[in-house]
Amino acid sequence: MSEASFFTDMLQSITDRGRQLLFSGARATQVAAKVDLQTLCEMLLSSRGEASGMALAAEILDRWGALESEGAQKFLLMLHEKFGPDTTKLDQAIDKYRADKSSAAIIALHQAAEPRRQELLRRLNHAPNGTAKLVRMRQQLLASKDQSAGYHALDADFTHLFGSWFNRGFLTLRPIDWTTPAYILEKIIKYEAVHEIAGWEELRRRLAPADRRCFAFFHPRLADEPLVFVEVALTRSVPRAIGDVLDEGREQINADEATTAVFYSISNCQDGLRGISFGNFLIKQVVEDLRRDLPGLKNFVTLSPVPGFARWLAKARPETLTALDDPNWPDDKKTATEVERVLLPLAARYFLVERTPEGRPVDPVARFHLGNGARLERLNFLGDRSAKAMQQAHGLMVNYLYKLDDIVANHEALAQRGEVIASPAVKSLLNQNDEGRSGGNGQQGSRPFAQIVNSTLGGGRK
Amino acid sequence: MSEASFFTDMLQSITDRGRQLLFSGARATQVAAKVDLQTLCEMLLSSRGEASGMALAAEILDRWGALESEGAQKFLLMLHEKFGPDTTKLDQAIDKYRADKSSAAIIALHQAAEPRRQELLRRLNHAPNGTAKLVRMRQQLLASKDQSAGYHALDADFTHLFGSWFNRGFLTLRPIDWTTPAYILEKIIKYEAVHEIAGWEELRRRLAPADRRCFAFFHPRLADEPLVFVEVALTRSVPRAIGDVLDEGREQINADEATTAVFYSISNCQDGLRGISFGNFLIKQVVEDLRRDLPGLKNFVTLSPVPGFARWLAKARPETLTALDDPNWPDDKKTATEVERVLLPLAARYFLVERTPEGRPVDPVARFHLGNGARLERLNFLGDRSAKAMQQAHGLMVNYLYKLDDIVANHEALAQRGEVIASPAVKSLLNQNDEGRSGGNGQQGSRPFAQIVNSTLGGGRK
Amino acid sequence: MSEASFFTDMLQSITDRGRQLLFSGARATQVAAKVDLQTLCEMLLSSRGEASGMALAAEILDRWGALESEGAQKFLLMLHEKFGPDTTKLDQAIDKYRADKSSAAIIALHQAAEPRRQELLRRLNHAPNGTAKLVRMRQQLLASKDQSAGYHALDADFTHLFGSWFNRGFLTLRPIDWTTPAYILEKIIKYEAVHEIAGWEELRRRLAPADRRCFAFFHPRLADEPLVFVEVALTRSVPRAIGDVLDEGREQINADEATTAVFYSISNCQDGLRGISFGNFLIKQVVEDLRRDLPGLKNFVTLSPVPGFARWLAKARPETLTALDDPNWPDDKKTATEVERVLLPLAARYFLVERTPEGRPVDPVARFHLGNGARLERLNFLGDRSAKAMQQAHGLMVNYLYKLDDIVANHEALAQRGEVIASPAVKSLLNQNDEGRSGGNGQQGSRPFAQIVNSTLGGGRK
Amino acid sequence: MSEASFFTDMLQSITDRGRQLLFSGARATQVAAKVDLQTLCEMLLSSRGEASGMALAAEILDRWGALESEGAQKFLLMLHEKFGPDTTKLDQAIDKYRADKSSAAIIALHQAAEPRRQELLRRLNHAPNGTAKLVRMRQQLLASKDQSAGYHALDADFTHLFGSWFNRGFLTLRPIDWTTPAYILEKIIKYEAVHEIAGWEELRRRLAPADRRCFAFFHPRLADEPLVFVEVALTRSVPRAIGDVLDEGREQINADEATTAVFYSISNCQDGLRGISFGNFLIKQVVEDLRRDLPGLKNFVTLSPVPGFARWLAKARPETLTALDDPNWPDDKKTATEVERVLLPLAARYFLVERTPEGRPVDPVARFHLGNGARLERLNFLGDRSAKAMQQAHGLMVNYLYKLDDIVANHEALAQRGEVIASPAVKSLLNQNDEGRSGGNGQQGSRPFAQIVNSTLGGGRK
Repeated sequence: MSEASFFTDMLQSITDRGRQLLFSGARATQVAAKVDLQTLCEMLLSSRGEASGMALAAEILDRWGALESEGAQKFLLMLHEKFGPDTTKLDQAIDKYRADKSSAAIIALHQAAEPRRQELLRRLNHAPNGTAKLVRMRQQLLASKDQSAGYHALDADFTHLFGSWFNRGFLTLRPIDWTTPAYILEKIIKYEAVHEIAGWEELRRRLAPADRRCFAFFHPRLADEPLVFVEVALTRSVPRAIGDVLDEGREQINADEATTAVFYSISNCQDGLRGISFGNFLIKQVVEDLRRDLPGLKNFVTLSPVPGFARWLAKARPETLTALDDPNWPDDKKTATEVERVLLPLAARYFLVERTPEGRPVDPVARFHLGNGARLERLNFLGDRSAKAMQQAHGLMVNYLYKLDDIVANHEALAQRGEVIASPAVKSLLNQNDEGRSGGNGQQGSRPFAQIVNSTLGGGRK
Repeated sequence: MSEASFFTDMLQSITDRGRQLLFSGARATQVAAKVDLQTLCEMLLSSRGEASGMALAAEILDRWGALESEGAQKFLLMLHEKFGPDTTKLDQAIDKYRADKSSAAIIALHQAAEPRRQELLRRLNHAPNGTAKLVRMRQQLLASKDQSAGYHALDADFTHLFGSWFNRGFLTLRPIDWTTPAYILEKIIKYEAVHEIAGWEELRRRLAPADRRCFAFFHPRLADEPLVFVEVALTRSVPRAIGDVLDEGREQINADEATTAVFYSISNCQDGLRGISFGNFLIKQVVEDLRRDLPGLKNFVTLSPVPGFARWLAKARPETLTALDDPNWPDDKKTATEVERVLLPLAARYFLVERTPEGRPVDPVARFHLGNGARLERLNFLGDRSAKAMQQAHGLMVNYLYKLDDIVANHEALAQRGEVIASPAVKSLLNQNDEGRSGGNGQQGSRPFAQIVNSTLGGGRK
Repeated sequence: MSEASFFTDMLQSITDRGRQLLFSGARATQVAAKVDLQTLCEMLLSSRGEASGMALAAEILDRWGALESEGAQKFLLMLHEKFGPDTTKLDQAIDKYRADKSSAAIIALHQAAEPRRQELLRRLNHAPNGTAKLVRMRQQLLASKDQSAGYHALDADFTHLFGSWFNRGFLTLRPIDWTTPAYILEKIIKYEAVHEIAGWEELRRRLAPADRRCFAFFHPRLADEPLVFVEVALTRSVPRAIGDVLDEGREQINADEATTAVFYSISNCQDGLRGISFGNFLIKQVVEDLRRDLPGLKNFVTLSPVPGFARWLAKARPETLTALDDPNWPDDKKTATEVERVLLPLAARYFLVERTPEGRPVDPVARFHLGNGARLERLNFLGDRSAKAMQQAHGLMVNYLYKLDDIVANHEALAQRGEVIASPAVKSLLNQNDEGRSGGNGQQGSRPFAQIVNSTLGGGRK
Repeated sequence: MSEASFFTDMLQSITDRGRQLLFSGARATQVAAKVDLQTLCEMLLSSRGEASGMALAAEILDRWGALESEGAQKFLLMLHEKFGPDTTKLDQAIDKYRADKSSAAIIALHQAAEPRRQELLRRLNHAPNGTAKLVRMRQQLLASKDQSAGYHALDADFTHLFGSWFNRGFLTLRPIDWTTPAYILEKIIKYEAVHEIAGWEELRRRLAPADRRCFAFFHPRLADEPLVFVEVALTRSVPRAIGDVLDEGREQINADEATTAVFYSISNCQDGLRGISFGNFLIKQVVEDLRRDLPGLKNFVTLSPVPGFARWLAKARPETLTALDDPNWPDDKKTATEVERVLLPLAARYFLVERTPEGRPVDPVARFHLGNGARLERLNFLGDRSAKAMQQAHGLMVNYLYKLDDIVANHEALAQRGEVIASPAVKSLLNQNDEGRSGGNGQQGSRPFAQIVNSTLGGGRK
């Protein structure tokens, strides 16, 4: 039995007893049956909640866990409607603050503005497995979030608390390898989100060889559950294609022969912790750990998918790229060469020029790595020929480079000037793009982009 | 090396590197030297803080740690003055809320009212040993709290964050025994606050015998530091005096012979966590654990000091109790008998009748145990003849009884009706008090002390 | 990394250094290359071996590990021929003993009779992973044992040393479950010798459910390698067929609902430890552990194969049992019924009457369990229809009952009187057998199979 | 509870049950009471012992543990007299061997010459805590060894088994520091044999500082008991006096500033393992570990006592050295200088020239380190002014140098040529000695040593 499970079991036994005492005596069973969840929540927030310890919290979470879908929705709605801030007190606090802008008045205002839910959630966390259950509760909430504007307020409370509880200072990094307990490993198989792990044999190939590493963040209270993990290949060069990393027949090397650490898969594990960011801490710490253990490592790069590329390209796809409609296009060498010539400059534009309305890179993976201070290092044409990658990105993969000395500057360039830092090679691809666009006369005039591409490509073929 | 220390060391090495990159290059060293702590804090709150990971946090905490007393005070003041809420935004948020009392407006208001400090403290927690350092920072704050009203706002932020971080759900209970590492044990010696532990030999006598137990709460991030611990003696009867528990020559028994678990010392360890309550959880969990492991245990009681009794008594001391002025009064049997007859009814009054202006029991230890739902079980005359106990309580000790089935009811009686639940024996002492007060027929001797007392106290009431 | 692996790594690093010093200096490399294995072994036995610590031992084992099959054979031969006892000294010791039968003379004789190999093997064990390598060396020896009589002497030394090193007092029992590290679990898959485990999913079904248990013995020095393990099913009745235990669709129960623990698979893992017995200790300890943890358990039984039954039966098979020649015989209900009627009495005879020349039960699994003091409880017709079980035992399985209070008596009955203790039901089957044999009056049908059998077997006895 | 203790407890519970079954039923209790220890030992050696598992072994060891001194002596005597080899079988085996010197005959002879005790001890080791109890049994044996010649045979069996069980391959090295459990640490205090540890505060000063290390060998089955430990000081020079190492006021340094590791105390912990050598393995492994963790370490030396020096000197003390009779002689500077001039050459002779009848160095500590391949590096006049050191060695301490590259050669020089390897400085002291002895005319003639010394000293004083 894992230590965490043992702890959970012990808490469970305590709480069973607690629940008994909570509603002890002849009268109690009847009472318990009649008390509804909202009343129990009120009791938990009252002083009775302090005295009964974890029993009330456990009772509420158990009942919640047994609810059908509709009941669970109602429970969330009830949390929103009945456990918001006390607006009467809030209005009084505002009045006091307006009258006297003392720090005491601000504290009082801040407290009055805090929804009662937050304390309720804190007390629910006392229950055995409370944290895990609350994470699942938010997962439920997120799944239904679009249906009601009111849920947003509830989510704000979860986000606030989880941000505090899952502070990076409370996370521990643990290596995942072939000595890891099976019940953790099966979660790695389950949660892998980038390059599917087909089964235990494939998992073994990713964890056991001397040139493979995997690391995960854990939280002490969710000790059986990885929060986020990264898979790393130790290599002698920066790989261009996922096959270089994952092919069964690849040549294995010793760890100390490696010059390059390739982060080829990063997966978040807990839907209920969406938006609580650990990935950036994970990569930086893994870089540090690897550097310390393997001084021969000089390069830290990713081999990443480009999940938004195909969709973006579809909006403004030059007609000649209709070649992509034939699923076997990569097999025809000439077609592939043509596609590469057009696709890479467009990809450079996708990364370097395009922006979301908020001014951020459009690709979600790019947002993550560039936001972390990585540099866009290389575009890898046909880096991944899996169905998923062909569909999302026409097979394109990219390398992001993590150079610790440049991380702050890179990040600031993006955060403050909106500038994506990229290698000269990638930037020169953009120039090819521009050259193409300007029709050779060096003007970036009024002609629409798609049209230019089209004529360019057409011209090339004439 | 303990696991926690190892973790700390690893974090340290990462951060050293991070700090280097934070101010890397030729220019950096000069910059670092010139940047003041306030600016560093602003940087940490900015997006630059996200990118530089833990390095900035570590830099700030290291510099803070090196400050002399005066500088440290200034730092706290700066936190208060410069990192409160943005009042412009707060006023705007109030206006919006007044215009439209939507839940979105309340969230925005709550966020605007949150001092910027809170996010700053959360980010400082990313540093190696961050939590421990922040606990020390609050300790410093509390030490100087009385000096300035402004500090109260700062403390509210610490209290809010620590309440969330040290949620009982995140604490783990660990037994402390003779197999515990020495560096933890020396802290038990240091933190023991009730009955001093004179050295390792005495510690051994409290931990190693088969009829002794000790338990502590730990936090995963402060793994080397107990938060609160309780010492337990397993006995065959409820002890009346601390000597019955601690005397070297006492008879040892096997654990499974015991019927009674005596909580004879509870000590909080971290000044910086004052007011963040774990003691009640500790006792209840220890009761559950002991009950599970030793089914022969039927009674769970404390043997507790009464630290406020002598001071209270001094205010209204009956003249005859001047006997107490002779430090050797207990040695004279007749005097002792007389004193006992007067003192115990007064003590019953101290516990059952007297109240603070807020309506709570006046004795701090009583507030704790009665607030937890314990019952006042017995008053033990001359239970502790140590200098400290004689001075604080004229040697009085009491037993509080933890009966799990009654905890909620006892707690509610106090919380809602202000009623202290006590055993019939204790209550009857109060009646003697009352009888004495009302009677005056002197049936207990030539000139009853109770009567004397009565006239004194009663006089105050007339 | 597992603790054992870490320990191994550390030893390795020490030894690499040691080897360097062993042959340090310019001259050394040349020397090392020229020194043959026999000389190195002599060096290890000399005082030089004491000084060079583990380096020489490691050098020898490494070179041995690199030998091809023929070289490895020669190495074993060399151990036998060159590292036996010093016969001159032995003869002298005999003479002294004959002259003066003092205890000192016996000690000297015993020491002189000890092959030098034993000390050599003890010193080889100093090397990193020495124990594992020596176990593998014996595995090699056993694989070629039949080829030369001289190997027997060598094996006697291994057996003597391993018997001492793998003394039950040095073994630790560890549960194997779904929290066990993957690199241990894959060995469970590999070593399972009774009912093959097809892959990780099937492994999970045997380990993870609440009504399954698995335990293995480990040796501290072979911490990554189970020595022997047993798989247990917790049930509400004694199963008759392996399908009741292993079928995917079986009903799962809670552990505390179980009344019966079924040991349905016991596998030895290390060929090199053949004949060093731990299995009997394993079962008895597991019975104790389960009884302590699950007081509801009343019956401890096996569900065991009968690997020698078909071969035995073939020698004296009654003609009518030619029905068995049709592989689909169990599918025909009438045939199956007839076969059962004949087969079970024969099986009872196989267990209760037949003996090896040494007077022991002929079935190897029976020898193990009956020798441990178990009782033969029930014969299960068609308990296992797998190809292997059909071929070895015509599908027969049996239950052995472990009743701790009877173990010594059962064991003694077999060891001293040659009597197999069996349930009345099994014994009555034998009677049917006997009745059939002695009777001939055909009361069980038109022409009883038993009678046929009888005439056949009986004929053999005439 | 420690893991080892837990394991022990579990074994205990199993065995209690086993004992019950061993003598179960109405008749059993009476039987058990009547059966004497010798019979129980015979039962354990019989097949009944196999079946009853650990119960018989535990019964025997428990009864043995309860014996008074006289009974324990008788038990040992009984082991010797009743469980020696079967001489009839031995004689037969000798006859067979004489008739046919086959390897099978040798094996049979070796087995016949093995005292039955050895198998008995192996089976006793199955009991809970069996190993620890057998170690204690030998301790008892050693304490009374001188009283009877017969005990020697018994000790030979213990030595043989312990040599196998405590093979270095089964030992694990563990650091001892301030995070070590208290129950281990108190044993360090207890077992320290060279420089007494006065209490926990002094222990802390030896373990906790950054420039201190301690390591111990443990056996998996004696997990709560160190076998041997070494205390190490990390310094910047080779210390001349124990005060340099142990003084409270000494300057502490960081571990990575150290160039020198000083082994200043090595203590064997288990009397019952006397003669089973681990110390040499310990030092060499600690040297390797330290070298790996602290690459700055260049020198590995001891600071060792010279326990046999004073006794040796007394035999041939030059009359002028009567100065030593005044216990305050070191306080007189002039006297001290004189003594030094005479004492050091004599000490050089003590180490380099004097030999035991077997040709080994006379000093026991020297035998250990020189036998390990260390070099005698320096004699430190008045290195230890404690009463013990003054009495044993007139305050002399020495440094032995462990240079791994020279260890084998140094060891061989001593083992094969009887040559003690020493530094030039020490050897030159011997020359002074010789000069002195030869009266200045360079002849090592017939004049007795003491006389020469005398005249020399006398001469120096004139």
